[in-house]
Amino acid sequence: MSFSPLVDRLMESFRVLPGVGPKTAQRMAMHLLERDREGGQRLAEVLGVALEQVGYCQRCRTLTEETICALCESDRRDDSVLCVVESPADLLAIEDARGYRGRYFVLHGHLSPLDGIGPEDIGLDQLDARVAEDGVEEVILATNPTVEGEATAHYIASQLGPRGVKLSRLAYGVPMGGELEYVDGGTLSRAFNGRLPFESE
Amino acid sequence: MSFSPLVDRLMESFRVLPGVGPKTAQRMAMHLLERDREGGQRLAEVLGVALEQVGYCQRCRTLTEETICALCESDRRDDSVLCVVESPADLLAIEDARGYRGRYFVLHGHLSPLDGIGPEDIGLDQLDARVAEDGVEEVILATNPTVEGEATAHYIASQLGPRGVKLSRLAYGVPMGGELEYVDGGTLSRAFNGRLPFESE
Repeated sequence: MSFSPLVDRLMESFRVLPGVGPKTAQRMAMHLLERDREGGQRLAEVLGVALEQVGYCQRCRTLTEETICALCESDRRDDSVLCVVESPADLLAIEDARGYRGRYFVLHGHLSPLDGIGPEDIGLDQLDARVAEDGVEEVILATNPTVEGEATAHYIASQLGPRGVKLSRLAYGVPMGGELEYVDGGTLSRAFNGRLPFESE
Repeated sequence: MSFSPLVDRLMESFRVLPGVGPKTAQRMAMHLLERDREGGQRLAEVLGVALEQVGYCQRCRTLTEETICALCESDRRDDSVLCVVESPADLLAIEDARGYRGRYFVLHGHLSPLDGIGPEDIGLDQLDARVAEDGVEEVILATNPTVEGEATAHYIASQLGPRGVKLSRLAYGVPMGGELEYVDGGTLSRAFNGRLPFESE
């Protein structure tokens, strides 16, 4: 309660942000009102414009204000490999790792029949059409290593099977730089089962 | 880098919020774009309107979109006590504690000659006028227990001295519910020096 309805509404509005509770929301509102009105005004404008203009790339479905995103437009990427991810954040993580030079396809979620999310909702018809048309030779199913992600990968694999493309999945194993002691059992079992000959790489 | 200039600008804009680094900013942008465009749109609007309309109460200088804030307008508060705080957040904290029923005066900072922040910048002329006019009998100097807050309290005390009002400062001591082991030395010394007769309250 700030005794100003508008300030109260502002504090309440910040709670739409992930991980922001009442205390943090108050701190954010006070910070912008007291110390950075210019930055706050800029945030309000960019946020309004972005939410209005940013949609999905018609080719890969990642977030962009253009019809076709810069990644799809680029002629320096390998058209023969297509990486399927659940979210634009996954795409960013893979790009940050800098190893991959192919194209992407973003599902914006995973199959979830109980929530009424079926194949069309995650763009699988569009993915199928894209694989059929283009010179895609390999599809990397980079959905999350969760039950839902696995199920989605299996569904896509069965759908794309008849197209004759190579299908792959990210390797499972112990994370680089981690300590075995802290790796969960499921991951450890996977790493044992998928063990590689020494110096195989 | 998201390959969309607008999404990049949005992620950058979130970094004006306190405690928000690049990773959190990305998570916030993605969350609103992917999962809560309506809430994001509401945040953009309220933020824009609040930054434009919220100013200082003409009486107590707290944040409000009105000329006089609801707290100053209320006839259920005690006009004889005036609590001087550094920020609206301090006012909120004191109100949340529910013990105080008097009026407030908000400085929006503290004296800081090196940064060019003098008495007028924190409204001390207005505070002086208010104490002179109204039936204020006691001024509680609730500036922060920091070097700057102390200095500001001392300055205000010397300024208001001739007005003949009672001046007080919040009690220093160990925080309720804390463990002595974790209380800092300065606070402990203060608590020892200000020790009270048992059952004095």
